[in-house]
Amino acid sequence: MDFFFNPQGIAVVGATPNPLKGGNAILKNILLGYRGRIYPVNPKYHRIEGLTCYPSVGSIPEPVDLVIVFVPAPLVPAVVEDCAGKGVRGVIIESGGFAEAGPEGERLQKTLTDIAERTGIRLWGPNCMGLVDCVHRHIFSFMDPRALEREEFIPGNVSLVVQSGMLSAIFLIDIMSNATMGVSKVCSVGNKVDVNECDILEYFLGDPDTGVIGLYLESFSDGRRFLDLCRRSGKPIVVLKGGRSRAGAEAALSHTASLAGNQRIITGALAQVGVREARDFKQMMDLCRSLSLTKPAPGGSGRVAVLTLSGGAGIVATDFVAEHGLTMAALSAATKNTLERLFPRWMPVTNPVDLWPAMEKQSSADVDVYSLSLEALLSDPEVDAVFLHVFISNPRSRLNPSELAARIHAAGKPIIVWIIGRRDDVYAFQKEALVHGIPVFTDISRAAECLAAVLGERCRPEPMSDEKKEPRTMPAPLQKLLHSASGPLDEHLSKELLRAGGIPTIPEEIVADPAHAEAAAAALGYPVVMKGLIPGGIHKTELGLVRLEISDRRAVRTTFENLMEQMEGRGKVLIQKQHPGRVELILGLLRDPQFGPCVMFGPGGVLAELYDDTVFAAAPLTYGEALKLIGRIRSRKVLDGFRGTPPVNREEIARILVALGEIGLSQPRIREIDINPLIVGEQGAAAADATIILG
Amino acid sequence: MDFFFNPQGIAVVGATPNPLKGGNAILKNILLGYRGRIYPVNPKYHRIEGLTCYPSVGSIPEPVDLVIVFVPAPLVPAVVEDCAGKGVRGVIIESGGFAEAGPEGERLQKTLTDIAERTGIRLWGPNCMGLVDCVHRHIFSFMDPRALEREEFIPGNVSLVVQSGMLSAIFLIDIMSNATMGVSKVCSVGNKVDVNECDILEYFLGDPDTGVIGLYLESFSDGRRFLDLCRRSGKPIVVLKGGRSRAGAEAALSHTASLAGNQRIITGALAQVGVREARDFKQMMDLCRSLSLTKPAPGGSGRVAVLTLSGGAGIVATDFVAEHGLTMAALSAATKNTLERLFPRWMPVTNPVDLWPAMEKQSSADVDVYSLSLEALLSDPEVDAVFLHVFISNPRSRLNPSELAARIHAAGKPIIVWIIGRRDDVYAFQKEALVHGIPVFTDISRAAECLAAVLGERCRPEPMSDEKKEPRTMPAPLQKLLHSASGPLDEHLSKELLRAGGIPTIPEEIVADPAHAEAAAAALGYPVVMKGLIPGGIHKTELGLVRLEISDRRAVRTTFENLMEQMEGRGKVLIQKQHPGRVELILGLLRDPQFGPCVMFGPGGVLAELYDDTVFAAAPLTYGEALKLIGRIRSRKVLDGFRGTPPVNREEIARILVALGEIGLSQPRIREIDINPLIVGEQGAAAADATIILG
Repeated sequence: MDFFFNPQGIAVVGATPNPLKGGNAILKNILLGYRGRIYPVNPKYHRIEGLTCYPSVGSIPEPVDLVIVFVPAPLVPAVVEDCAGKGVRGVIIESGGFAEAGPEGERLQKTLTDIAERTGIRLWGPNCMGLVDCVHRHIFSFMDPRALEREEFIPGNVSLVVQSGMLSAIFLIDIMSNATMGVSKVCSVGNKVDVNECDILEYFLGDPDTGVIGLYLESFSDGRRFLDLCRRSGKPIVVLKGGRSRAGAEAALSHTASLAGNQRIITGALAQVGVREARDFKQMMDLCRSLSLTKPAPGGSGRVAVLTLSGGAGIVATDFVAEHGLTMAALSAATKNTLERLFPRWMPVTNPVDLWPAMEKQSSADVDVYSLSLEALLSDPEVDAVFLHVFISNPRSRLNPSELAARIHAAGKPIIVWIIGRRDDVYAFQKEALVHGIPVFTDISRAAECLAAVLGERCRPEPMSDEKKEPRTMPAPLQKLLHSASGPLDEHLSKELLRAGGIPTIPEEIVADPAHAEAAAAALGYPVVMKGLIPGGIHKTELGLVRLEISDRRAVRTTFENLMEQMEGRGKVLIQKQHPGRVELILGLLRDPQFGPCVMFGPGGVLAELYDDTVFAAAPLTYGEALKLIGRIRSRKVLDGFRGTPPVNREEIARILVALGEIGLSQPRIREIDINPLIVGEQGAAAADATIILG
Repeated sequence: MDFFFNPQGIAVVGATPNPLKGGNAILKNILLGYRGRIYPVNPKYHRIEGLTCYPSVGSIPEPVDLVIVFVPAPLVPAVVEDCAGKGVRGVIIESGGFAEAGPEGERLQKTLTDIAERTGIRLWGPNCMGLVDCVHRHIFSFMDPRALEREEFIPGNVSLVVQSGMLSAIFLIDIMSNATMGVSKVCSVGNKVDVNECDILEYFLGDPDTGVIGLYLESFSDGRRFLDLCRRSGKPIVVLKGGRSRAGAEAALSHTASLAGNQRIITGALAQVGVREARDFKQMMDLCRSLSLTKPAPGGSGRVAVLTLSGGAGIVATDFVAEHGLTMAALSAATKNTLERLFPRWMPVTNPVDLWPAMEKQSSADVDVYSLSLEALLSDPEVDAVFLHVFISNPRSRLNPSELAARIHAAGKPIIVWIIGRRDDVYAFQKEALVHGIPVFTDISRAAECLAAVLGERCRPEPMSDEKKEPRTMPAPLQKLLHSASGPLDEHLSKELLRAGGIPTIPEEIVADPAHAEAAAAALGYPVVMKGLIPGGIHKTELGLVRLEISDRRAVRTTFENLMEQMEGRGKVLIQKQHPGRVELILGLLRDPQFGPCVMFGPGGVLAELYDDTVFAAAPLTYGEALKLIGRIRSRKVLDGFRGTPPVNREEIARILVALGEIGLSQPRIREIDINPLIVGEQGAAAADATIILG
């Protein structure tokens, strides 16, 4: 992939001297920073922008690594063939008119796919803005050169992938003109005919100029590879997935020919591999910026000291600290002593630290209350991070960003600044702070959110062990079943499969006649449950085929006869021990088109449905991920010994979730698994009812 | 209150020629705009800032409406006495050192309360920044005059109350320098010794210069009056309550000596009276601005058309439209026709409308695609509002704010602009748009949130009927009980009280002996429930005193004897019909220190506790408010016929909630009521168990 970013020789097909056209902009932009050889290609001209122009890529006498194409869509396939013939390694197709533009465009795009597959040439785009590298000033894009001339690049270590050509350009201009953050690379991936977000993400993971990765995506080209890359990443990753809502997903379908996934699965899978999910463009930038500038101190937790110039700001900052799951630090005695000397006598030293009364008190003395207090908080072992309020337009509350930076770096603890004041003063401070690596925010809520992101960044996912686990071998009859059957399996077969896959199920037996039923009931122990299983009948309860609380021989016999009669000879009778459960859970597996087999977990009964309280993770899950997944349901109280019941053994449930994921991975014909409920009782957890659907 | 805002003559006690002191700033600030007589007061000087200075307020020869005080706290009571003697109507005390500053300050503040009560003089503050009126340029505050000189006031119709002196000043500077919005008045209320947020809110309701009211509060001085005022308001009100979290509330207690209320009750009460709750300072300003600039069209609902310059922006805008409960408009045929003529042939016309392909297509023709599309959307009867994306730094996507405003006003529909581009271009557009009454946002999520607020503003609370309802008279024995008893009443007495208050309860009887029990059971009909009631024993189930499913005479007799034995002669036995319920609910009443009797509603069983799914409203509730309250639980699906049960009669539950509130209002000795559960069955709803706690 490096030839896209650092090519030896670039040709521009569709180059033109007309300054109103993209083909001219591309050339001018390349000239702004690229130091290698540049070859305009256009049969109509001999020279463009002072460079020799060639009629075709094939006619360029020297080797060319990269070709940027900006000609009408119908002409593109021939150009790409020409490139392949010439031995070009990568082509960025910036023209539109492909899959996003109706059936004819789809056909053209298919042609491109075929050429890439046949020749091995890598194709980037089409329908994209190309890429910009702010560190090396490589601008391989048709964005307006005038926009670029007006702004200064701020080189930095945040690299972005943007699945929207327009937005990638807009973002860059917005980031540059607002001095939001330092950027390494911005890549517009367009229709992803060949190069997709995974290829670029993989490149970024090894790119020394990239420290933080942000992606705006409307679809995942290869969900499983994406997750694997994220899991391996030592760099923070932030993803904004457009099309979260049903309506948004519909909009996404008509844009860049995307396939939007189930948002709940996406959210679960991203959380599983340690990716931070953003919702809003600016928020995504703010998160990237914070993670790029600031790191949590090793060994700390989330204890925050708030230093403000207004009690009100302290109160609201405290609200947000709590909302984001951080805690207000309990200041050490030494810090309190330092602050007490600065404060008026009547003022108790608490966190949030409201500095104004101290400033009032010390206004005549030449004491830098602000810096002294900050110093005390930063050196407090009880404090992991400082939320700092700067009122820039008050001379007494002005901090020098470079001194501030020196203090922060000495302390090795993150600081987030919430700034307020005159617009120009704010901007000047913010720009200077950026140079010194201090994240500054004008929204108090955003500041708190980003501080939480920084402090949470220590929680990287555990690496997936590389040793290939052999999937459990299924007994021959089950293997045969898995090959030959389709649609829903009955409860008994489903549970046999689960048991073979390592998931505990409650004791049960299929019984052939009343005597068999009686013997089975006696062996299982009363009370028992009896169920009628008919082919395809997954809704047993609704069909009246589930009978509970059967407590004696006579009832077993009558129930057997009743069920058989009701099924009109088409079904089987299942008898099982009535499991004395304390907590019921729902577990599931489904095969997502983007992420493959995904495991679902939720509380049982009506809860999951009433409160949409289910969580997902992609298989395979590590044991640790399964434990975290369990902790993500909102009703987790129910697991911790709710209303007098003893707590659920989370380790046991985690092992079952891991096993469920392995079944999904090793058995590709399984489309769906429903374990509803998994009953957790004194003897442990067991699937009480289950359905497996083969696809 | 008008003498605070438009006084005839102002004296400044603590005036000084020293430009570093607040007493000088106050004088300078008054001189910036106030056109009446100004009297500096300080025994040390004869003239300050060119004005005759007086040794005391009493020595001013002319009448004085308003006095602003900025002298050390211990001197303030004597000054206020002097003012009262002179016949001054209002005093703004801007000095600190009162209740926020320890016991000595509290004593001083108490002295001020006493003087106000004795003399009738109105006191504003202490520990506040006073007030600023941007329309009349009345600046009665010690804020830095230089800060004011550097910025232009933007007069407008948003008025603010800020319970934090520092923040009120900072906000004003922030708003002015960012051209956030036009402001009428900013009032800093400080410690609220006399004048509180209610007084100012009431004044704002009648103030012709005020159109929208925003309040940052750390406490409610008189919650019930506040709610009444909000309910009567024809103007939108936005409240940011600091101290939402437990930690934040603790911080609030040490600031401005506030009492923070239960956040869940506050949220419920504010929603009940149509107040919009903000969480963040900038968000509060953004909401105020949007509500000030824009109004929903009469008769519309929440159908939004999104017009963007990027498919990605359209997708994310659509996500937020859905998230805020708005709907994407289905465009009419006429609109589609208009757009189809502008669009490339292959492009389907859908909402969100991605304009870029049309702009590309029409780039050579002289067609203003942007304006034509906007026009079509605004005139579409299927569209209630337009979410407009402006990419300001692209010349082809530039809109003229004044033309845009003309279109909007002609259509009478709100538009919200999400802008992105170069910082300076964005600011220039935003400032011009403000003049033309168009709200512009740089955050896409904020833009959507504010559009939702504007479209939701049609939902004003219904006015409370003025006719005084006579509370139901309680039968004499119950009246006696309410006077004499204290602590928890037993279930039977509690339900008798509820029944007398108009709340249905299940049929039941206290039985004295086994024969009585048998007769009662026969009359009620089997199965019955029997409970042992012992004084103070509210946890009957935990004590093993609840027996269900009693289905025959013998069981009634045995159970009676068992219960009596278990209670060791201390209790009574209650027998009741086992109510065949379909849905269980929890209702409650509690007396909040700020809002008085408040009604609680939630789903029954474990749901309310597991998911914190309870909602509150202050009594009295109108019937309509009770209906809305019911609709605010997250598990409302359970009410609409969940899993085959018929829907719950919401009207019936609403009437019960109204009655519950009336009981709380008319019976001040009732501290708490728990109805758990209220069973909703085929015959209607009835309280199955209840406890009333007298205080």
